Amino acid sequence: MKRSAFFISDGTGITAENLGHSLLSQFGSIEFEHITIPYVDSQEKAHEAVAQINKAAVNDGNPPVVFETIVDQDIRTVISRCKGFTLDIFSTFVHPLEKELQTSSSYTVGQSHSIVDESSYKIRIEAVHYALDNDDGARTRQYPEADIILTGVSRCGKTPTCLYLALQFGIKAANYPLTEDDMDDLKLPKVLNEHKHKLFGLTIDPIRLTAIRSERKANTKYATARQCEMEVRAAQAIFNKVNIPYMDATDLSIEEISTRILAQTGIERRLQG
Amino acid sequence: MKRSAFFISDGTGITAENLGHSLLSQFGSIEFEHITIPYVDSQEKAHEAVAQINKAAVNDGNPPVVFETIVDQDIRTVISRCKGFTLDIFSTFVHPLEKELQTSSSYTVGQSHSIVDESSYKIRIEAVHYALDNDDGARTRQYPEADIILTGVSRCGKTPTCLYLALQFGIKAANYPLTEDDMDDLKLPKVLNEHKHKLFGLTIDPIRLTAIRSERKANTKYATARQCEMEVRAAQAIFNKVNIPYMDATDLSIEEISTRILAQTGIERRLQG
Repeated sequence: MKRSAFFISDGTGITAENLGHSLLSQFGSIEFEHITIPYVDSQEKAHEAVAQINKAAVNDGNPPVVFETIVDQDIRTVISRCKGFTLDIFSTFVHPLEKELQTSSSYTVGQSHSIVDESSYKIRIEAVHYALDNDDGARTRQYPEADIILTGVSRCGKTPTCLYLALQFGIKAANYPLTEDDMDDLKLPKVLNEHKHKLFGLTIDPIRLTAIRSERKANTKYATARQCEMEVRAAQAIFNKVNIPYMDATDLSIEEISTRILAQTGIERRLQG
Repeated sequence: MKRSAFFISDGTGITAENLGHSLLSQFGSIEFEHITIPYVDSQEKAHEAVAQINKAAVNDGNPPVVFETIVDQDIRTVISRCKGFTLDIFSTFVHPLEKELQTSSSYTVGQSHSIVDESSYKIRIEAVHYALDNDDGARTRQYPEADIILTGVSRCGKTPTCLYLALQFGIKAANYPLTEDDMDDLKLPKVLNEHKHKLFGLTIDPIRLTAIRSERKANTKYATARQCEMEVRAAQAIFNKVNIPYMDATDLSIEEISTRILAQTGIERRLQG
Protein backbone atom coordinates (compact mmCIF):
# COMPACT_ATOMS: atom_id res chain seq x y z
CA MET A 1 0.00 0.00 0.00
CA LYS A 2 1.41 3.33 -1.05
CA ARG A 3 0.37 6.72 0.24
CA SER A 4 1.62 10.20 -0.39
CA ALA A 5 2.21 12.49 2.57
CA PHE A 6 2.24 16.24 2.03
CA PHE A 7 3.73 18.81 4.39
CA ILE A 8 2.31 22.19 3.52
CA SER A 9 3.22 25.48 5.09
CA ASP A 10 3.32 29.21 4.45
CA GLY A 11 6.84 29.12 5.91
CA THR A 12 9.74 26.68 5.75
CA GLY A 13 7.53 23.64 6.35
CA ILE A 14 9.94 22.39 9.00
CA THR A 15 7.36 22.18 11.78
CA ALA A 16 4.87 20.29 9.60
CA GLU A 17 7.59 17.93 8.36
CA ASN A 18 9.04 17.33 11.75
CA LEU A 19 5.79 16.38 13.42
CA GLY A 20 4.47 14.61 10.32
CA HIS A 21 7.57 12.43 9.93
CA SER A 22 7.42 11.44 13.59
CA LEU A 23 3.75 10.51 13.33
CA LEU A 24 4.07 8.57 10.08
CA SER A 25 7.04 6.61 11.42
CA GLN A 26 4.50 5.01 13.76
CA PHE A 27 2.86 3.38 10.76
CA GLY A 28 5.60 1.04 9.65
CA SER A 29 3.36 -1.07 7.42
CA ILE A 30 2.67 1.79 5.03
CA GLU A 31 5.16 3.23 2.62
CA PHE A 32 4.78 6.99 2.45
CA GLU A 33 6.18 9.25 -0.19
CA HIS A 34 7.03 12.56 1.45
CA ILE A 35 6.38 15.80 -0.41
CA THR A 36 7.04 19.17 1.23
CA ILE A 37 5.46 22.28 -0.27
CA PRO A 38 6.81 25.30 1.62
CA TYR A 39 5.98 29.00 1.23
CA VAL A 40 2.34 28.47 0.24
CA ASP A 41 1.47 32.09 0.97
CA SER A 42 -1.16 32.89 -1.64
CA GLN A 43 -4.42 31.36 -2.79
CA GLU A 44 -2.85 30.73 -6.17
CA LYS A 45 -0.08 28.65 -4.61
CA ALA A 46 -2.69 26.87 -2.50
CA HIS A 47 -4.60 25.90 -5.63
CA GLU A 48 -1.38 24.57 -7.16
CA ALA A 49 -0.74 22.52 -4.02
CA VAL A 50 -4.27 21.17 -4.12
CA ALA A 51 -3.81 20.12 -7.75
CA GLN A 52 -0.66 18.26 -6.75
CA ILE A 53 -2.42 16.55 -3.85
CA ASN A 54 -5.37 15.55 -6.00
CA LYS A 55 -3.09 14.14 -8.67
CA ALA A 56 -1.33 12.00 -6.04
CA ALA A 57 -4.73 10.82 -4.80
CA VAL A 58 -5.52 9.53 -8.28
CA ASN A 59 -2.07 8.00 -8.84
CA ASP A 60 -1.95 6.30 -5.44
CA GLY A 61 -5.57 5.23 -5.44
CA ASN A 62 -5.59 6.52 -1.88
CA PRO A 63 -6.14 9.95 -0.38
CA PRO A 64 -2.80 11.51 0.63
CA VAL A 65 -2.22 12.54 4.23
CA VAL A 66 -1.76 16.30 4.44
CA PHE A 67 -0.02 17.96 7.40
CA GLU A 68 -0.59 21.66 7.25
CA THR A 69 0.59 24.76 9.14
CA ILE A 70 -0.86 27.78 7.40
CA VAL A 71 -2.01 30.96 9.10
CA ASP A 72 -4.21 32.66 6.56
CA GLN A 73 -7.77 31.42 6.87
CA ASP A 74 -8.56 31.83 3.17
CA ILE A 75 -5.49 29.90 2.08
CA ARG A 76 -6.29 27.22 4.64
CA THR A 77 -9.80 26.95 3.25
CA VAL A 78 -8.42 26.26 -0.23
CA ILE A 79 -6.19 23.49 1.12
CA SER A 80 -8.99 21.97 3.17
CA ARG A 81 -10.95 21.26 -0.02
CA CYS A 82 -8.25 18.94 -1.41
CA LYS A 83 -8.85 15.23 -1.85
CA GLY A 84 -6.51 14.41 1.00
CA PHE A 85 -6.90 13.65 4.67
CA THR A 86 -5.88 16.99 6.15
CA LEU A 87 -4.50 17.56 9.64
CA ASP A 88 -4.48 21.23 10.55
CA ILE A 89 -1.70 21.20 13.13
CA PHE A 90 -1.86 24.74 14.43
CA SER A 91 -5.62 25.11 14.72
CA THR A 92 -5.71 21.94 16.77
CA PHE A 93 -3.55 23.40 19.51
CA VAL A 94 -3.97 27.15 19.21
CA HIS A 95 -7.56 27.16 20.43
CA PRO A 96 -7.00 25.19 23.66
CA LEU A 97 -3.89 27.31 24.28
CA GLU A 98 -5.86 30.54 23.82
CA LYS A 99 -8.36 29.34 26.38
CA GLU A 100 -5.69 28.33 28.88
CA LEU A 101 -3.63 31.49 28.40
CA GLN A 102 -6.74 33.67 28.31
CA THR A 103 -5.46 35.68 25.40
CA SER A 104 -5.88 35.51 21.68
CA SER A 105 -2.91 34.52 19.57
CA SER A 106 -1.52 36.30 16.58
CA TYR A 107 -1.74 32.91 14.87
CA THR A 108 0.98 33.99 12.55
CA VAL A 109 2.86 30.79 12.16
CA GLY A 110 6.55 31.12 11.75
CA GLN A 111 6.54 34.84 12.33
CA SER A 112 9.05 34.28 15.08
CA HIS A 113 11.31 32.74 12.48
CA SER A 114 10.66 35.19 9.71
CA ILE A 115 11.74 38.17 11.67
CA VAL A 116 15.20 37.01 12.52
CA ASP A 117 16.36 37.92 15.96
CA GLU A 118 19.73 39.53 15.27
CA SER A 119 21.34 38.44 18.51
CA SER A 120 20.32 34.81 17.98
CA TYR A 121 21.65 34.98 14.45
CA LYS A 122 25.00 36.22 15.72
CA ILE A 123 25.24 33.56 18.42
CA ARG A 124 24.52 30.89 15.86
CA ILE A 125 26.93 32.10 13.21
CA GLU A 126 29.64 32.65 15.76
CA ALA A 127 29.17 29.11 17.05
CA VAL A 128 29.33 27.69 13.50
CA HIS A 129 32.56 29.52 12.78
CA TYR A 130 33.92 28.44 16.14
CA ALA A 131 33.22 24.80 15.25
CA LEU A 132 34.91 25.23 11.87
CA ASP A 133 37.95 26.99 13.30
CA ASN A 134 38.34 24.37 16.00
CA ASP A 135 37.59 21.27 13.99
CA ASP A 136 39.83 18.24 14.11
CA GLY A 137 42.30 19.68 16.60
CA ALA A 138 43.28 22.32 14.06
CA ARG A 139 44.02 24.77 16.82
CA THR A 140 43.71 24.72 20.56
CA ARG A 141 44.24 28.32 21.63
CA GLN A 142 40.50 29.02 21.48
CA TYR A 143 39.74 26.18 23.90
CA PRO A 144 39.21 28.56 26.83
CA GLU A 145 36.10 29.79 24.96
CA ALA A 146 34.76 26.29 24.27
CA ASP A 147 31.54 25.11 25.87
CA ILE A 148 32.60 21.55 25.15
CA ILE A 149 35.47 19.71 23.48
CA LEU A 150 34.57 16.41 21.84
CA THR A 151 37.26 13.81 21.51
CA GLY A 152 37.56 10.31 20.08
CA VAL A 153 39.00 8.45 17.11
CA SER A 154 38.83 9.81 13.59
CA ARG A 155 35.35 9.39 12.00
CA CYS A 156 33.36 8.60 15.09
CA GLY A 157 31.00 11.54 14.51
CA LYS A 158 32.72 14.43 16.29
CA THR A 159 32.58 16.98 13.47
CA PRO A 160 28.88 16.66 12.51
CA THR A 161 27.97 16.69 16.19
CA CYS A 162 29.93 19.90 16.79
CA LEU A 163 28.24 21.53 13.80
CA TYR A 164 24.81 20.42 14.93
CA LEU A 165 25.45 21.74 18.45
CA ALA A 166 26.47 25.05 16.89
CA LEU A 167 23.61 25.40 14.42
CA GLN A 168 20.88 24.15 16.69
CA PHE A 169 21.89 25.38 20.11
CA GLY A 170 24.54 28.04 19.49
CA ILE A 171 27.01 26.00 21.52
CA LYS A 172 30.73 26.46 20.94
CA ALA A 173 32.00 22.95 20.39
CA ALA A 174 35.58 22.10 19.47
CA ASN A 175 36.80 18.64 18.59
CA TYR A 176 40.13 16.94 19.02
CA PRO A 177 40.94 13.59 17.43
CA LEU A 178 42.97 11.10 19.41
CA THR A 179 46.08 10.12 17.47
CA GLU A 180 48.18 6.98 17.49
CA ASP A 181 50.72 8.70 19.73
CA ASP A 182 48.09 9.24 22.39
CA MET A 183 46.99 5.67 21.98
CA ASP A 184 50.48 4.24 22.40
CA ASP A 185 50.85 5.99 25.73
CA LEU A 186 47.20 5.53 26.74
CA LYS A 187 47.17 9.06 27.96
CA LEU A 188 45.49 12.32 27.21
CA PRO A 189 47.33 14.67 24.85
CA LYS A 190 49.07 17.32 26.93
CA VAL A 191 47.17 20.17 25.33
CA LEU A 192 43.88 18.73 26.60
CA ASN A 193 44.93 18.38 30.23
CA GLU A 194 44.00 21.87 31.32
CA HIS A 195 40.62 21.58 29.58
CA LYS A 196 39.79 18.17 30.98
CA HIS A 197 36.52 19.37 32.55
CA LYS A 198 35.23 20.35 29.09
CA LEU A 199 36.04 17.04 27.44
CA PHE A 200 33.43 14.59 26.27
CA GLY A 201 34.33 11.36 24.50
CA LEU A 202 32.58 9.64 21.62
CA THR A 203 33.13 6.01 20.88
CA ILE A 204 31.80 3.77 18.14
CA ASP A 205 31.52 0.10 17.27
CA PRO A 206 34.78 -0.90 15.47
CA ILE A 207 32.87 -2.74 12.73
CA ARG A 208 30.79 0.33 12.00
CA LEU A 209 33.93 2.48 12.07
CA THR A 210 35.62 0.16 9.59
CA ALA A 211 32.66 0.52 7.23
CA ILE A 212 32.65 4.31 7.54
CA ARG A 213 36.39 4.63 7.00
CA SER A 214 36.36 2.18 4.09
CA GLU A 215 33.75 4.32 2.38
CA ARG A 216 36.14 7.23 2.54
CA LYS A 217 39.57 5.64 2.20
CA ALA A 218 39.22 2.12 0.92
CA ASN A 219 42.18 -0.25 1.19
CA THR A 220 44.25 1.81 3.59
CA LYS A 221 45.65 0.77 6.94
CA TYR A 222 43.41 3.49 8.43
CA ALA A 223 40.32 1.59 7.27
CA THR A 224 41.32 -1.92 8.35
CA ALA A 225 39.25 -3.75 10.92
CA ARG A 226 42.41 -4.34 12.95
CA GLN A 227 43.34 -0.64 13.10
CA CYS A 228 39.78 0.46 13.90
CA GLU A 229 39.50 -2.12 16.66
CA MET A 230 42.82 -1.05 18.16
CA GLU A 231 41.98 2.66 18.07
CA VAL A 232 38.52 2.24 19.58
CA ARG A 233 39.87 0.09 22.41
CA ALA A 234 42.67 2.55 23.12
CA ALA A 235 40.31 5.56 23.08
CA GLN A 236 37.96 3.90 25.54
CA ALA A 237 40.89 2.95 27.74
CA ILE A 238 41.97 6.59 27.83
CA PHE A 239 38.44 7.79 28.62
CA ASN A 240 38.19 5.32 31.48
CA LYS A 241 41.67 5.97 32.78
CA VAL A 242 41.43 9.74 32.96
CA ASN A 243 37.75 9.69 33.78
CA ILE A 244 36.24 11.46 30.79
CA PRO A 245 32.49 10.98 30.31
CA TYR A 246 31.75 9.29 27.01
CA MET A 247 29.00 7.86 24.88
CA ASP A 248 28.67 5.15 22.28
CA ALA A 249 27.53 6.94 19.13
CA THR A 250 27.09 3.84 16.96
CA ASP A 251 23.31 3.60 16.85
CA LEU A 252 22.53 7.25 17.44
CA SER A 253 21.58 10.00 15.05
CA ILE A 254 23.45 13.29 15.23
CA GLU A 255 20.41 14.80 16.94
CA GLU A 256 20.47 12.09 19.55
CA ILE A 257 24.20 12.34 20.22
CA SER A 258 23.86 16.12 20.59
CA THR A 259 20.81 16.17 22.83
CA ARG A 260 22.17 13.34 24.98
CA ILE A 261 25.41 15.23 25.49
CA LEU A 262 23.44 18.27 26.64
CA ALA A 263 21.31 16.15 28.95
CA GLN A 264 24.32 14.38 30.41
CA THR A 265 26.64 17.36 30.84
CA GLY A 266 24.04 19.96 31.71
CA ILE A 267 25.61 22.42 29.27
CA GLU A 268 23.21 25.29 28.69
CA ARG A 269 21.99 26.11 25.22
CA ARG A 270 22.79 29.58 24.00
CA LEU A 271 19.72 29.63 21.77
CA GLN A 272 16.16 28.95 22.81
CA GLY A 273 15.37 27.79 19.28
CA MET B 1 3.01 37.73 33.04
CA LYS B 2 5.53 34.92 33.11
CA ARG B 3 4.91 31.30 32.22
CA SER B 4 7.15 28.29 31.99
CA ALA B 5 6.88 26.04 28.96
CA PHE B 6 8.11 22.47 29.18
CA PHE B 7 8.95 20.20 26.27
CA ILE B 8 8.98 16.64 27.47
CA SER B 9 9.87 13.58 25.45
CA ASP B 10 11.19 10.04 25.72
CA GLY B 11 13.49 10.92 22.81
CA THR B 12 15.42 14.00 21.79
CA GLY B 13 12.52 16.36 22.46
CA ILE B 14 13.05 18.00 19.09
CA THR B 15 9.51 17.39 17.81
CA ALA B 16 7.90 18.72 21.00
CA GLU B 17 10.20 21.76 21.00
CA ASN B 18 9.73 22.50 17.38
CA LEU B 19 5.94 22.50 17.44
CA GLY B 20 5.80 24.07 20.90
CA HIS B 21 8.07 26.97 19.97
CA SER B 22 6.01 27.67 16.85
CA LEU B 23 2.77 27.65 18.81
CA LEU B 24 4.05 29.81 21.66
CA SER B 25 5.45 32.36 19.25
CA GLN B 26 1.79 33.12 18.45
CA PHE B 27 1.38 34.48 21.96
CA GLY B 28 3.62 37.51 21.83
CA SER B 29 2.21 39.12 24.96
CA ILE B 30 3.45 36.34 27.22
CA GLU B 31 7.03 35.72 28.15
CA PHE B 32 7.74 31.99 28.23
CA GLU B 33 10.72 30.34 29.80
CA HIS B 34 11.54 27.26 27.75
CA ILE B 35 12.65 24.08 29.49
CA THR B 36 13.30 20.88 27.53
CA ILE B 37 13.43 17.58 29.37
CA PRO B 38 14.48 14.87 26.90
CA TYR B 39 14.87 11.11 27.40
CA VAL B 40 12.09 10.77 29.97
CA ASP B 41 11.93 7.01 29.50
CA SER B 42 11.09 5.76 32.98
CA GLN B 43 8.45 6.50 35.59
CA GLU B 44 11.19 7.73 37.89
CA LYS B 45 12.30 10.32 35.37
CA ALA B 46 8.66 11.25 34.79
CA HIS B 47 8.22 11.92 38.51
CA GLU B 48 11.34 14.10 38.47
CA ALA B 49 9.92 16.05 35.51
CA VAL B 50 6.60 16.47 37.31
CA ALA B 51 8.41 17.82 40.38
CA GLN B 52 10.18 20.35 38.17
CA ILE B 53 6.90 21.38 36.51
CA ASN B 54 5.12 21.73 39.85
CA LYS B 55 7.93 23.83 41.24
CA ALA B 56 7.68 26.16 38.24
CA ALA B 57 3.91 26.38 38.77
CA VAL B 58 4.50 27.66 42.29
CA ASN B 59 7.32 30.02 41.32
CA ASP B 60 5.42 31.48 38.36
CA GLY B 61 2.06 31.61 40.09
CA ASN B 62 0.75 30.12 36.84
CA PRO B 63 0.46 26.59 35.53
CA PRO B 64 3.25 25.86 33.02
CA VAL B 65 2.35 24.79 29.51
CA VAL B 66 3.60 21.26 28.86
CA PHE B 67 4.15 19.90 25.35
CA GLU B 68 4.66 16.19 25.51
CA THR B 69 5.58 13.37 23.11
CA ILE B 70 5.90 10.19 25.13
CA VAL B 71 4.93 6.72 23.95
CA ASP B 72 4.65 4.70 27.11
CA GLN B 73 1.16 5.00 28.54
CA ASP B 74 2.28 4.64 32.17
CA ILE B 75 4.92 7.34 31.84
CA ARG B 76 2.39 9.57 30.10
CA THR B 77 -0.04 9.04 32.96
CA VAL B 78 2.56 10.26 35.46
CA ILE B 79 3.15 13.41 33.41
CA SER B 80 -0.57 14.05 32.95
CA ARG B 81 -0.94 14.45 36.73
CA CYS B 82 1.41 17.44 36.86
CA LYS B 83 0.17 20.91 37.76
CA GLY B 84 0.65 22.13 34.22
CA PHE B 85 -1.54 22.53 31.17
CA THR B 86 -0.52 19.45 29.19
CA LEU B 87 -0.79 19.03 25.43
CA ASP B 88 -0.26 15.43 24.38
CA ILE B 89 0.91 15.98 20.83
CA PHE B 90 1.09 12.43 19.53
CA SER B 91 -2.16 11.12 20.98
CA THR B 92 -3.96 14.03 19.38
CA PHE B 93 -3.02 12.99 15.88
CA VAL B 94 -2.31 9.28 16.11
CA HIS B 95 -5.92 8.33 16.66
CA PRO B 96 -7.43 10.15 13.67
CA LEU B 97 -4.53 8.84 11.55
CA GLU B 98 -5.17 5.25 12.65
CA LYS B 99 -8.77 5.65 11.63
CA GLU B 100 -7.91 7.12 8.25
CA LEU B 101 -5.14 4.62 7.52
CA GLN B 102 -7.21 1.74 8.91
CA THR B 103 -4.27 0.29 10.77
CA SER B 104 -2.94 0.60 14.27
CA SER B 105 0.32 2.42 14.83
CA SER B 106 3.33 1.23 16.74
CA TYR B 107 3.06 4.54 18.55
CA THR B 108 6.71 4.29 19.25
CA VAL B 109 7.63 7.90 18.99
CA GLY B 110 11.02 8.59 17.60
CA GLN B 111 11.74 4.96 16.84
CA SER B 112 12.52 6.00 13.32
CA HIS B 113 15.25 8.18 14.75
CA SER B 114 16.55 5.77 17.35
CA ILE B 115 17.34 3.04 14.91
CA VAL B 116 19.62 4.98 12.65
CA ASP B 117 19.28 4.19 9.01
CA GLU B 118 22.88 3.54 7.98
CA SER B 119 22.49 4.79 4.44
CA SER B 120 20.94 8.06 5.61
CA TYR B 121 23.74 8.44 8.13
CA LYS B 122 26.33 8.02 5.40
CA ILE B 123 24.63 10.47 3.07
CA ARG B 124 24.50 13.03 5.83
CA ILE B 125 28.07 12.64 7.01
CA GLU B 126 29.35 12.65 3.46
CA ALA B 127 27.47 15.87 2.77
CA VAL B 128 28.87 17.50 5.93
CA HIS B 129 32.41 16.60 4.97
CA TYR B 130 31.76 17.78 1.43
CA ALA B 131 30.65 21.16 2.78
CA LEU B 132 33.74 21.40 4.98
CA ASP B 133 36.13 20.39 2.21
CA ASN B 134 34.54 22.84 -0.19
CA ASP B 135 34.03 25.77 2.13
CA ASP B 136 35.11 29.24 1.19
CA GLY B 137 36.45 28.32 -2.24
CA ALA B 138 39.15 26.20 -0.61
CA ARG B 139 39.15 23.85 -3.56
CA THR B 140 37.14 23.58 -6.72
CA ARG B 141 38.02 20.19 -8.16
CA GLN B 142 35.09 18.56 -6.37
CA TYR B 143 32.59 20.96 -7.98
CA PRO B 144 31.42 18.32 -10.47
CA GLU B 145 29.93 16.48 -7.47
CA ALA B 146 28.21 19.55 -6.04
CA ASP B 147 24.44 19.78 -5.90
CA ILE B 148 24.76 23.53 -5.50
CA ILE B 149 27.49 26.15 -5.22
CA LEU B 150 26.64 29.20 -3.16
CA THR B 151 28.41 32.42 -3.94
CA GLY B 152 28.43 35.95 -2.59
CA VAL B 153 30.55 38.31 -0.51
CA SER B 154 32.35 37.18 2.62
CA ARG B 155 30.03 36.79 5.63
CA CYS B 156 26.71 36.86 3.84
CA GLY B 157 25.69 33.47 5.27
CA LYS B 158 27.10 30.99 2.73
CA THR B 159 28.91 28.67 5.14
CA PRO B 160 26.13 28.11 7.69
CA THR B 161 23.67 27.62 4.84
CA CYS B 162 25.88 24.97 3.22
CA LEU B 163 26.23 23.17 6.55
CA TYR B 164 22.51 23.30 7.17
CA LEU B 165 21.77 21.95 3.68
CA ALA B 166 24.21 19.11 4.38
CA LEU B 167 22.98 18.21 7.86
CA GLN B 168 19.29 18.58 7.18
CA PHE B 169 18.91 17.44 3.61
CA GLY B 170 22.13 15.57 2.78
CA ILE B 171 22.79 18.04 -0.02
CA LYS B 172 26.34 18.58 -1.23
CA ALA B 173 26.77 22.33 -1.10
CA ALA B 174 30.02 24.11 -1.87
CA ASN B 175 30.59 27.80 -1.44
CA TYR B 176 32.79 30.27 -3.23
CA PRO B 177 33.36 33.81 -1.97
CA LEU B 178 33.54 36.61 -4.50
CA THR B 179 36.81 38.48 -4.13
CA GLU B 180 37.79 42.03 -4.90
CA ASP B 181 39.38 40.88 -8.17
CA ASP B 182 36.06 39.52 -9.37
CA MET B 183 34.40 42.71 -8.29
CA ASP B 184 36.81 44.94 -10.14
CA ASP B 185 36.04 43.16 -13.39
CA LEU B 186 32.37 42.60 -12.60
CA LYS B 187 32.69 39.11 -13.90
CA LEU B 188 32.45 35.59 -12.66
CA PRO B 189 35.70 33.93 -11.53
CA LYS B 190 36.89 31.69 -14.36
CA VAL B 191 36.73 28.56 -12.26
CA LEU B 192 32.99 29.03 -11.80
CA ASN B 193 32.12 29.40 -15.45
CA GLU B 194 31.69 25.73 -16.23
CA HIS B 195 29.55 25.26 -13.10
CA LYS B 196 27.33 28.23 -13.75
CA HIS B 197 24.15 26.15 -13.74
CA LYS B 198 24.89 25.12 -10.14
CA LEU B 199 25.48 28.63 -8.83
CA PHE B 200 23.17 30.38 -6.45
CA GLY B 201 23.93 33.85 -5.10
CA LEU B 202 23.32 35.26 -1.65
CA THR B 203 23.18 38.94 -1.02
CA ILE B 204 22.76 40.96 2.16
CA ASP B 205 21.97 44.46 3.28
CA PRO B 206 25.31 46.36 3.46
CA ILE B 207 24.45 47.83 6.87
CA ARG B 208 23.82 44.39 8.28
CA LEU B 209 27.00 43.11 6.67
CA THR B 210 28.97 45.94 8.24
CA ALA B 211 27.63 44.98 11.65
CA ILE B 212 28.46 41.29 11.14
CA ARG B 213 31.97 41.96 9.90
CA SER B 214 32.65 44.51 12.65
CA GLU B 215 31.76 41.88 15.21
CA ARG B 216 34.49 39.66 13.80
CA LYS B 217 37.14 42.11 12.64
CA ALA B 218 36.51 45.50 14.14
CA ASN B 219 38.31 48.52 12.71
CA THR B 220 39.48 46.90 9.51
CA LYS B 221 38.89 48.07 5.96
CA TYR B 222 37.00 44.78 5.48
CA ALA B 223 34.41 45.89 8.03
CA THR B 224 33.87 49.46 6.86
CA ALA B 225 30.45 50.53 5.62
CA ARG B 226 32.07 51.76 2.42
CA GLN B 227 33.75 48.44 1.65
CA CYS B 228 30.63 46.42 2.48
CA GLU B 229 28.47 48.66 0.33
CA MET B 230 30.89 48.37 -2.59
CA GLU B 231 31.16 44.59 -2.36
CA VAL B 232 27.42 44.02 -2.10
CA ARG B 233 26.71 46.25 -5.09
CA ALA B 234 29.40 44.54 -7.15
CA ALA B 235 28.18 41.06 -6.23
CA GLN B 236 24.63 41.89 -7.22
CA ALA B 237 25.87 43.42 -10.46
CA ILE B 238 27.68 40.17 -11.26
CA PHE B 239 24.62 38.06 -10.42
CA ASN B 240 22.48 40.19 -12.68
CA LYS B 241 25.02 40.38 -15.46
CA VAL B 242 25.68 36.66 -15.77
CA ASN B 243 22.16 35.73 -14.80
CA ILE B 244 22.68 33.84 -11.55
CA PRO B 245 19.58 33.38 -9.39
CA TYR B 246 20.04 35.04 -6.01
CA MET B 247 18.31 35.86 -2.79
CA ASP B 248 18.53 38.56 -0.15
CA ALA B 249 19.45 36.74 3.04
CA THR B 250 19.28 39.75 5.36
CA ASP B 251 16.05 39.03 7.19
CA LEU B 252 16.05 35.26 6.80
CA SER B 253 17.05 32.52 9.18
CA ILE B 254 19.40 29.81 7.97
CA GLU B 255 16.41 27.46 7.75
CA GLU B 256 14.59 29.94 5.57
CA ILE B 257 17.52 30.60 3.26
CA SER B 258 18.02 26.85 2.85
CA THR B 259 14.40 25.89 2.25
CA ARG B 260 13.84 28.82 -0.10
CA ILE B 261 16.86 27.79 -2.14
CA LEU B 262 15.42 24.28 -2.46
CA ALA B 263 12.01 25.64 -3.41
CA GLN B 264 13.47 28.03 -5.97
CA THR B 265 16.00 25.71 -7.60
CA GLY B 266 14.04 22.48 -7.35
CA ILE B 267 17.14 20.66 -6.04
CA GLU B 268 16.07 17.32 -4.60
CA ARG B 269 16.84 16.44 -1.02
CA ARG B 270 18.95 13.36 -0.54
CA LEU B 271 17.37 12.69 2.85
CA GLN B 272 13.67 12.39 3.57
CA GLY B 273 14.33 13.52 7.12
